[in-house]
Amino acid sequence: METPISASASEQERQLFIKMALSAWNTQNDRVTKLLDTLSDEQMMGETAPQRNRGIYLLGHLITVSDGLLPLLGLGQRLYPQLEAVFLTSPDSKNNDGPSVGELRKYWTEINNLLSDHFNRMTPEMWFSKHNSVSAEDFAKEPHRNKLNIIINRANHTSYHLGQLVYLGKK
Amino acid sequence: METPISASASEQERQLFIKMALSAWNTQNDRVTKLLDTLSDEQMMGETAPQRNRGIYLLGHLITVSDGLLPLLGLGQRLYPQLEAVFLTSPDSKNNDGPSVGELRKYWTEINNLLSDHFNRMTPEMWFSKHNSVSAEDFAKEPHRNKLNIIINRANHTSYHLGQLVYLGKK
Repeated sequence: METPISASASEQERQLFIKMALSAWNTQNDRVTKLLDTLSDEQMMGETAPQRNRGIYLLGHLITVSDGLLPLLGLGQRLYPQLEAVFLTSPDSKNNDGPSVGELRKYWTEINNLLSDHFNRMTPEMWFSKHNSVSAEDFAKEPHRNKLNIIINRANHTSYHLGQLVYLGKK
Repeated sequence: METPISASASEQERQLFIKMALSAWNTQNDRVTKLLDTLSDEQMMGETAPQRNRGIYLLGHLITVSDGLLPLLGLGQRLYPQLEAVFLTSPDSKNNDGPSVGELRKYWTEINNLLSDHFNRMTPEMWFSKHNSVSAEDFAKEPHRNKLNIIINRANHTSYHLGQLVYLGKK
């Protein structure tokens, strides 16, 4: 009787690829967290550059985009649906009507912890299944539009805004 | 005689992983190219924010980091070794001793075209083999430190600086 060597190799490679994609995602989030630890609430209220988004807006934006992964990946409903109107579908209002920097720091930790818990339990089959913004028909033609692909692209989104948030720190 | 179904499925999955990682890389580079097309040489000589890196520095930096992929991935020697001292191992000098924005625009196109040619010819076996900054011993313990992983991480690096380069454009 032959052992399924090829299937086993495939499974190992899937695990390896998932590890690569999740590592990139975690790395970018960890860099944001480390930066936040060095920035005061006052610094976060400032603009990242003249007439550009404030730190508080970019943090709220990253939180609500990460929060949106819950429904997109079939993991549940958003924790903070009230943030969408302030930080996703509207530009930076430059006023202080929304949550405080302190509240957003708490949300940032919460959503990252919740996503990590989910991600650590997801099987390779789940990662390579379709996400909820692609139809079954399109997914059949474009199998790269899976859940793991979302994570690869969202890591780049986080990195993009991290490059802006660092401008709040010391020169 | 049994057909190697598992091996074939594995091969398709490898191709899928590679497509996902390369798509993210290409997307970020294309976004930089599109942005460059909207920025004048004069805009590129400006700082992305007060006392922060100039556009010309960030473009030179992205070129020399991409150029470094050639030796790192075993694809050849750097095309522009002279850029390293100006854009990689030194901070932005804020003077104009180096190449012009026009020359850098040409280099940006050249290195991206050359890398695309190489990447399109690379086999899955090559992508999942070790890159040249990890020892064979460490790679045996950490098989995620392969060539494809470099591309995933470098896409994030490009995205980070893209987030800064956009600050040169209109508000």
